Amino acid sequence: MAAIAGSPGGLGASLLEQFAETRRRTVALAEPLSPEDALLQSMPDASPAKWHLAHTTWFFETFVLARAAPPIPPHEPAWGYLFNSYYEAAGPRQPRPERGLLSRPPLAEVLRWRALVDDRVAALLSGGAGEALRDVVELGIAHEQQHQELLLTDVKHGFSVQPLRPAYAAVPAPSGRPAPRLAWFARDGGVGEIGAGARGFAFDNERPRHRVLVEPHALASRPVTCGEWMAFIDAGGYARPELWLSDGWAAVQRNGWRAPLYWAEERGSFWHFTLGGMRRVDEAEPVAHVSAYEADAYARYAAARLPTEAEWELAAEGAREDGTFADDGRFHPAGAREGDGLAQLLGDVWEWTQSAYAPYPGFRPLAGALGEYNGKFMVNQLVLRGGSCATPRGHVRPSYRNFFPPEARWQFTGLRLARDDA
Amino acid sequence: MAAIAGSPGGLGASLLEQFAETRRRTVALAEPLSPEDALLQSMPDASPAKWHLAHTTWFFETFVLARAAPPIPPHEPAWGYLFNSYYEAAGPRQPRPERGLLSRPPLAEVLRWRALVDDRVAALLSGGAGEALRDVVELGIAHEQQHQELLLTDVKHGFSVQPLRPAYAAVPAPSGRPAPRLAWFARDGGVGEIGAGARGFAFDNERPRHRVLVEPHALASRPVTCGEWMAFIDAGGYARPELWLSDGWAAVQRNGWRAPLYWAEERGSFWHFTLGGMRRVDEAEPVAHVSAYEADAYARYAAARLPTEAEWELAAEGAREDGTFADDGRFHPAGAREGDGLAQLLGDVWEWTQSAYAPYPGFRPLAGALGEYNGKFMVNQLVLRGGSCATPRGHVRPSYRNFFPPEARWQFTGLRLARDDA
Amino acid sequence: MAAIAGSPGGLGASLLEQFAETRRRTVALAEPLSPEDALLQSMPDASPAKWHLAHTTWFFETFVLARAAPPIPPHEPAWGYLFNSYYEAAGPRQPRPERGLLSRPPLAEVLRWRALVDDRVAALLSGGAGEALRDVVELGIAHEQQHQELLLTDVKHGFSVQPLRPAYAAVPAPSGRPAPRLAWFARDGGVGEIGAGARGFAFDNERPRHRVLVEPHALASRPVTCGEWMAFIDAGGYARPELWLSDGWAAVQRNGWRAPLYWAEERGSFWHFTLGGMRRVDEAEPVAHVSAYEADAYARYAAARLPTEAEWELAAEGAREDGTFADDGRFHPAGAREGDGLAQLLGDVWEWTQSAYAPYPGFRPLAGALGEYNGKFMVNQLVLRGGSCATPRGHVRPSYRNFFPPEARWQFTGLRLARDDA
Amino acid sequence: MAAIAGSPGGLGASLLEQFAETRRRTVALAEPLSPEDALLQSMPDASPAKWHLAHTTWFFETFVLARAAPPIPPHEPAWGYLFNSYYEAAGPRQPRPERGLLSRPPLAEVLRWRALVDDRVAALLSGGAGEALRDVVELGIAHEQQHQELLLTDVKHGFSVQPLRPAYAAVPAPSGRPAPRLAWFARDGGVGEIGAGARGFAFDNERPRHRVLVEPHALASRPVTCGEWMAFIDAGGYARPELWLSDGWAAVQRNGWRAPLYWAEERGSFWHFTLGGMRRVDEAEPVAHVSAYEADAYARYAAARLPTEAEWELAAEGAREDGTFADDGRFHPAGAREGDGLAQLLGDVWEWTQSAYAPYPGFRPLAGALGEYNGKFMVNQLVLRGGSCATPRGHVRPSYRNFFPPEARWQFTGLRLARDDA
Repeated sequence: MAAIAGSPGGLGASLLEQFAETRRRTVALAEPLSPEDALLQSMPDASPAKWHLAHTTWFFETFVLARAAPPIPPHEPAWGYLFNSYYEAAGPRQPRPERGLLSRPPLAEVLRWRALVDDRVAALLSGGAGEALRDVVELGIAHEQQHQELLLTDVKHGFSVQPLRPAYAAVPAPSGRPAPRLAWFARDGGVGEIGAGARGFAFDNERPRHRVLVEPHALASRPVTCGEWMAFIDAGGYARPELWLSDGWAAVQRNGWRAPLYWAEERGSFWHFTLGGMRRVDEAEPVAHVSAYEADAYARYAAARLPTEAEWELAAEGAREDGTFADDGRFHPAGAREGDGLAQLLGDVWEWTQSAYAPYPGFRPLAGALGEYNGKFMVNQLVLRGGSCATPRGHVRPSYRNFFPPEARWQFTGLRLARDDA
Repeated sequence: MAAIAGSPGGLGASLLEQFAETRRRTVALAEPLSPEDALLQSMPDASPAKWHLAHTTWFFETFVLARAAPPIPPHEPAWGYLFNSYYEAAGPRQPRPERGLLSRPPLAEVLRWRALVDDRVAALLSGGAGEALRDVVELGIAHEQQHQELLLTDVKHGFSVQPLRPAYAAVPAPSGRPAPRLAWFARDGGVGEIGAGARGFAFDNERPRHRVLVEPHALASRPVTCGEWMAFIDAGGYARPELWLSDGWAAVQRNGWRAPLYWAEERGSFWHFTLGGMRRVDEAEPVAHVSAYEADAYARYAAARLPTEAEWELAAEGAREDGTFADDGRFHPAGAREGDGLAQLLGDVWEWTQSAYAPYPGFRPLAGALGEYNGKFMVNQLVLRGGSCATPRGHVRPSYRNFFPPEARWQFTGLRLARDDA
Repeated sequence: MAAIAGSPGGLGASLLEQFAETRRRTVALAEPLSPEDALLQSMPDASPAKWHLAHTTWFFETFVLARAAPPIPPHEPAWGYLFNSYYEAAGPRQPRPERGLLSRPPLAEVLRWRALVDDRVAALLSGGAGEALRDVVELGIAHEQQHQELLLTDVKHGFSVQPLRPAYAAVPAPSGRPAPRLAWFARDGGVGEIGAGARGFAFDNERPRHRVLVEPHALASRPVTCGEWMAFIDAGGYARPELWLSDGWAAVQRNGWRAPLYWAEERGSFWHFTLGGMRRVDEAEPVAHVSAYEADAYARYAAARLPTEAEWELAAEGAREDGTFADDGRFHPAGAREGDGLAQLLGDVWEWTQSAYAPYPGFRPLAGALGEYNGKFMVNQLVLRGGSCATPRGHVRPSYRNFFPPEARWQFTGLRLARDDA
Repeated sequence: MAAIAGSPGGLGASLLEQFAETRRRTVALAEPLSPEDALLQSMPDASPAKWHLAHTTWFFETFVLARAAPPIPPHEPAWGYLFNSYYEAAGPRQPRPERGLLSRPPLAEVLRWRALVDDRVAALLSGGAGEALRDVVELGIAHEQQHQELLLTDVKHGFSVQPLRPAYAAVPAPSGRPAPRLAWFARDGGVGEIGAGARGFAFDNERPRHRVLVEPHALASRPVTCGEWMAFIDAGGYARPELWLSDGWAAVQRNGWRAPLYWAEERGSFWHFTLGGMRRVDEAEPVAHVSAYEADAYARYAAARLPTEAEWELAAEGAREDGTFADDGRFHPAGAREGDGLAQLLGDVWEWTQSAYAPYPGFRPLAGALGEYNGKFMVNQLVLRGGSCATPRGHVRPSYRNFFPPEARWQFTGLRLARDDA
């Protein structure tokens, strides 16, 4: 995937391979699921695995095949209503909280449809007709990778609410290795540049590359760990309003939060639900499944703050890629390894920033329906950076901007501390 | 089923046959469903088909096998939490609105469990040890028949909300036969008797048989038809508050009711969703899927009223059994045939009465957890009588009391008019 | 008021006096309230005192003055929208939960309007033109008395939710007298008659007088007391699902009920909010402010049941009128006095029955908008009998039917036990 | 007020005068209100005028008098619970949506309490003991001015929901003058400075003064007018999803927005509710009562965008102060006058920016409970700049940061366009 993620080009053959590999990978991720598992929608924010399989296929059918010359019509026109996510320009759609009601078409039929669309896109890319659609295919691949991550986090949520607590995969046992000592990496203030350059694939929200001004600051060498989080809990972190933003404190009260999502205390020990079932919490692992409110409260407790996205990206340019990704098959964050420099900037857990998700100066969304991809969500969300153990390797890059509302917890979301450095 | 429904006894062999036949029938009703269909829960009041298959099995495991001497322990103790419906005395349970989240155990495993429990109950009944449990087995059979009906109405709802509107079965085309002319059957006032006698199977809520006093009245010869309901709609029935109970009018506003559930108007014609898919409304068929509020408003519009349950039962004793039941495989109400006397008292559509569901004088619930079966629901519900096209033949009888809140519409609920006869 | 309540007639002069006295009394009840107190709406079911003052005036303006010949037009036509309660035939109206938003017209202006309407009705009644409207004036008087009671219970609720817990009036201290021992009064089964006869004032829902059949039963000599209720609490009454109707148990969980409304436990003693402020609970007083669910659970705990409304009314005919009414200025239930026969059937606390509020055989609502007075509420409510310490003396009678949903607790609602007597 | 707003100092005498004048002014603003008007809470976000009168008094009692040496205890300790707004460190408090239930203490008593506290603070300031509390008194004055604005906007909302639509004051008739033609003022990109310097009064959220980097851009000469907004409506602005942020479009659907808050269309003309009652919309006036979602959609429709707060503040430094403030007694935005330069930056309507409300680099909240004043709200809100016709003159300044959630509409919120200037 490196070609897509970082490099400016790649040949047609390479794009076709990337397409085929991405499509194959999505099906592989759904393989451990029964048809019933694949229909599960355990909350409005989550979608059934079958829906992810279908929606990504609809994306290629709608934005690639239907735009080919001559246009290739959809396999089943009625399915557009079912599998459009939020593209107003692409017509009405099944309400998001009701995706779990779509027992039809069955999973097997969706998989057949995938194969059909795969063949059609491949044929298009193999011929000259596909040249004009390369950009959209690249986008479609990146889009499908995002849904691969959502498929995993949605399945995790759907399994977690079931009394039988099934496992999706084998998650390795805790390493027993302690977390490396926390160190701080300082940067002088001044004007720098962030954002994706004009060449190579990137989402529209990463552009244009532009100047930013930062003040002197320091970043922590690694994400906050589960062990550090336990100390926060022990220190009454969830019961001290002075540590919290007002909306965060309201969320604590409303939801009864006492620990990260999926954590449970049993006879003095913390356990959590993982994609491998219930497991004792490993103190050395980065904490995950915390909301931005919790991340912010922890930072205040630690006499620190969350980084801005500019601070994060300036640090991440050229950083080593040492984190866990979905391709590693671990499906769970791993503890940082000892070493020089900033660890785990890419992979393991998404890192909340304090930056509201907003357009860069000079931002221009894509034309047409695809302009709805990113731009229309630029309010009420915070930026996260770096990817997680559920992200396909190569999907993220230093300029990559993920975004979620501050209350969201079902992604693999953690944090790295920052502080002013006067 | 006649032995259970009406007669005082039957031999052990007969009970075993009834048990086996009922259990087989439930599985047969679920056969047209995919594993995904069987997980569908389209509203909190409805349950997945898989849950019905499992809950009825849990019932035998909990109230028969576990009470045998020596007790036969449950196949999977953890499943008690999943498949207990509302028996407080049987322990905590999966919240009702979240039954659709149980992707595990999968359908195939539930079916294997059914077979296992069937064998165990059969073995028990074949030996002498089962004699003491005959009453509970009889209750379990009647209980399972109720869930057969719910399985059908829940599937109908679950299919109706899907844009593809799948069909569960082949429903015959409209007959083209007009409905018989409405006639009235009068009864003098006085003291009569209703309720089930001491012998034979009946639910506890049908007992004791007791005296009732009725005033002179008349009952309509057949249920209200779809054609008559269209006239009500044309007369502005859903827009005239003076026809409605206050709570009913509020429900009309809140829910935007303009016709029975499942009806849709298209270019001047009414269509409705049936277990056979979308179909043109047949004017001669009894109207179904109306709430008690709608039934009451219609009766007021027709210068009539709903019958009391005593009026209904006095008329039903000895009535011909001419209606459609689930065993007919039609899964849809049929128009009344010409003929003498009161038509369709049993079968086709449940008939709303004006009677609140309340204990009969001297009512005593069963002992223990099974006492929760009927008695604890005796508030906020109205009595329905007569069974429907989704009811197993032989399950209902003149004294049978069904009950639903007045706003419920997803059962095959219709009405028969009554009037005072001074 | 006895003329209205019980006797067939009364002269015009007497009607005018009753009108004037009732109108004066409403204003007197509002006197302890500041303009701010009179705007208070502490929950959707309650109305501001100012609204009660205005609505009862609107009633006379709409149903008496506007029907006079020639019609007397309303003082301010725009106020019809503000002060219509629920009469669909009288046009649209301010949504009920938003009555507390009507800071205009101010209280002083409403009081001036009352005086104006009083003069106009008095003039009408003094002249011959009023003769045709006598029935509506009688109804308007009874209607206003009902709102006098609501004014008191709504103020009680509005004061109870304020941290300063103000007092409306001086409530006498506990008597220290113990409650009389509970005795049972048996009645043979058979056919009797209940309901209001054709002559004299009664609401339409009390008619027609008709035959009823009751089985042998017994009624308790007095209502359940606070002391008995404390024993119920001590026995875990609010924590034992087997005592509760299913909807009742859900209400207990949803609302966190642990005692009657207004009760609070402090260092081992029960206190409750009264119209005289916080006061220690007097064990001898009848318990009040319990829902029908609680009443029903208590009865089951006491191996008894709630009476039917027929059983209650048959016992109440000719009973002594020994209870506390609003005119006594106590505004709080008093303990029963020792004595023969059934105590406190009328006054002190409304008594929940097990009877759903339904039309009597042959029931005919009044014509026109006034037909909405009672009939349209005949679903989802239970009948209460007997009046309370907030009811104007003379307002109730043995045939009087009050009704509330089973979850309601803000009226002075208590219970009397009944049991089958085989 | 200029001393507070902008200058570094002022003598003790001046502070006392400012205190007395501010306190007097709040009472004057409440003078047109009856006690009932002053209790009105028409939505959870709004507070009763009486509560504003009391809360601002509680502020001085808690943060000034109680901190004096020796401390001056509160007049009524129980009132702390009633009139604390959101200071967790100051103890528990009346839930915000239930402030309208506080009929006690009555308005007259609150006014007496105000006078008492005024005297005590004045005595403190006159003596030397007050010196240490000068900063808190300054903060208390600014705080009270904010509540003066809220009092007006909350009364406007409370009056708007009443069918009688009362007027609070006389609002001048439309001027008939057309709006000045829109012009654009460009600024080069580069590094500038914003934020309040170290001297003089400012809120903690305006500090520290710090460098910002802006790109070349232009600002509109005046806010968007009602006439321009009508054109937006005519162009289908509320029906074109492509103009809206996703959350904004959801708000349009959920709330049925078709025009700014308080607007109503009647026979082809737009009217709106003002503090002077219903009035025809004046096309030349700046549009007010639009959410940030609407402002953003309008900007997109106009091929422009909202300014950042840095762009706005850089333009506002040294701008003429030509807008309408509360002291003008107009209580309604006025049309811009012809003239050079940027008009109405201060006064008339608050201007939505695209900037999320976030801490400035190096932000430090005040110590103790007063640190809750601003910092804990720094999420889920957008910054507004410039003050409105309901803001006390002198209260705002170029560095002043107001903030509201993007869906809020009940403040006098409008917008000024910005655009990139490449």
